Amino acid sequence: MEVEELLCMNKGDGENSYLQNSENSQKVAAMAKPALENAVQSLFSKGFLPYQVLNVADLGCSSGSETFSVVETVIQNVKIKCKELNCQIPEFQFYLNDLTGNDFNTLFRGSSNFTEKYSDLHCFVMGSPGSFHGRLFPKNTMHLIYSSYAIQWLSKVPTLRDKEGFPLNKGKMYISDTSPPVVKEAYLAQFQEDFGFFLKCRSQEMIQNGRVFLIFHGRVSEEHTTKETCVGWEPLTEAIAELVSQGLISEEKLDSFDAPDYVPSLQEVKDIVGKEGSFEIEVLETFPIEIGDKEFWSNEEILAKDIRSFTESLVSYHFGEEIVEKLYAQLTDSWLHKKNQTREGILRILQVKRAAAVGNL
Amino acid sequence: MEVEELLCMNKGDGENSYLQNSENSQKVAAMAKPALENAVQSLFSKGFLPYQVLNVADLGCSSGSETFSVVETVIQNVKIKCKELNCQIPEFQFYLNDLTGNDFNTLFRGSSNFTEKYSDLHCFVMGSPGSFHGRLFPKNTMHLIYSSYAIQWLSKVPTLRDKEGFPLNKGKMYISDTSPPVVKEAYLAQFQEDFGFFLKCRSQEMIQNGRVFLIFHGRVSEEHTTKETCVGWEPLTEAIAELVSQGLISEEKLDSFDAPDYVPSLQEVKDIVGKEGSFEIEVLETFPIEIGDKEFWSNEEILAKDIRSFTESLVSYHFGEEIVEKLYAQLTDSWLHKKNQTREGILRILQVKRAAAVGNL
Repeated sequence: MEVEELLCMNKGDGENSYLQNSENSQKVAAMAKPALENAVQSLFSKGFLPYQVLNVADLGCSSGSETFSVVETVIQNVKIKCKELNCQIPEFQFYLNDLTGNDFNTLFRGSSNFTEKYSDLHCFVMGSPGSFHGRLFPKNTMHLIYSSYAIQWLSKVPTLRDKEGFPLNKGKMYISDTSPPVVKEAYLAQFQEDFGFFLKCRSQEMIQNGRVFLIFHGRVSEEHTTKETCVGWEPLTEAIAELVSQGLISEEKLDSFDAPDYVPSLQEVKDIVGKEGSFEIEVLETFPIEIGDKEFWSNEEILAKDIRSFTESLVSYHFGEEIVEKLYAQLTDSWLHKKNQTREGILRILQVKRAAAVGNL
Repeated sequence: MEVEELLCMNKGDGENSYLQNSENSQKVAAMAKPALENAVQSLFSKGFLPYQVLNVADLGCSSGSETFSVVETVIQNVKIKCKELNCQIPEFQFYLNDLTGNDFNTLFRGSSNFTEKYSDLHCFVMGSPGSFHGRLFPKNTMHLIYSSYAIQWLSKVPTLRDKEGFPLNKGKMYISDTSPPVVKEAYLAQFQEDFGFFLKCRSQEMIQNGRVFLIFHGRVSEEHTTKETCVGWEPLTEAIAELVSQGLISEEKLDSFDAPDYVPSLQEVKDIVGKEGSFEIEVLETFPIEIGDKEFWSNEEILAKDIRSFTESLVSYHFGEEIVEKLYAQLTDSWLHKKNQTREGILRILQVKRAAAVGNL
């Protein structure tokens, strides 16, 4: 099965749902808010007005509630600028995108509160099912495209087998300190292809001067160190390795799982934007975050639930539904027993502006 | 609770789901296909081209599969006209609308097959959650708005109590032969308000010359006769009355339920369109249908399931979930015991064209 057919954040509003475990994403959205406010206001430059309708998208929005915080930030800042410039508030069309398997029913339940709150404006919320590794919107229509913690997902897992079919990244689910260079190269190549195509698609969809605003997990150094890239896959690998040692999961099963996920460095992102050529970089900010930091996760159990909410769909398909409860219990245990073991992480914000006129896709 | 918070077609893909019981709607869509083809082709008149993108909506699409037949009819006819006129095929944006409680997850599962089939074109499928008794899209953006078997739903139940609070439509769930004139008047007034406002909202959303294409259940005569208006509520009333006589449902419960649904006559529809004033009637066709007709329902059990799929959300809220199985079993029984009892029905197609420039809403 393709990644896009399998991947989804945990549905519904139960204990293990993404909705109940998206504290992290909400905090990230709060950190990124000032930068997003600037991005929205930058749309109101000279010769760029008036708008009859402002088309805004959140790509990979999932079914958490942070997408509506983003939408509110957009509305509030448009109102500020319209007051300042003495122009009419436009109508808004918000496209909430995620893969077809996303829980749009839960997402839309949140939309009615929101539209009631802004009933004095014309705000239209749309769901846009599909992969952002392809076109999602008509040409020259979008003003602002936002995406948080989503572009790291790859469209497919890179091939990590040698000519004889042996796993190149034995015992690991993602790049680690011990992974051979070929593994890192294969991951980078897939990210270059995916992110380059992402930008090409967005450039078709945006009006000239439209903005793409991306939040993603990044690396500080050019090297891949486990300490930096661990969020999610490394503690999960540890938990699975423990179940392998208990004979509950075969070694082969662990070896054959590779996460369709990539944590890029600053230079890698710059290179891809430059090479693709449709966008100019306007902002590239970096925020250090610490896993274990109370600002991010109040405790390890919450972190474990967070990891479960975005990995379960893939893990359950590969390792089998019957092992899922034990596996995530093991993850919680591992983390609870490693109290105060903080890990570093980097949050990056990239804002690009659609520059030159672009050809057809 | 408001009608729009309660009403939904049965979710999922199980035995009682709308998806598995929408044979009728599919057949109606097939009957209306030639008229829809003309409507699509009429968009390609002089001075109305070229389109970069064609915005099409299906209002009240539910989670059945017929919405994709409609979408395909649109694409095929646009292709025909573009070939004929030697112009480029536009991109397509299809907005699939229904109330927030609709099962968009099931609907979107159907969309991926569709987008694969038309991968040579740029077709973007969007979900639009919200009530069509209000604005759904930005101003001057829509080219074609389609809606089948949806505009009969009222935004609220008319008040059917006298000054002392006694029910005016005792023992009935909808207008029947024995209903007093005040009941008919209250229903008509609500439909006039709702359909008038529906047209006003659509007129704001459409480009000039855009088309609204509506399929709905209608009456032949100006009178309301049970024989004509029975689809759904009358057999359901019979089944509930049977449970009342068995002491399983209180008489009061039956008296206090009134369906938020209206079956209009030809003249009523014409009057509302004329009075609202934003649209010109281009087509108003009538097709007789017979309930019990093999063309429509292969047997009474299928009809009973069809009725269940669109009434259960309201019935279950009012009469209680615990009685639902018994109630629909009773409905099936009643119909099975009345074999060959055919009822008349009227299917109407109304196509209107946005005429004059319209003010703000």
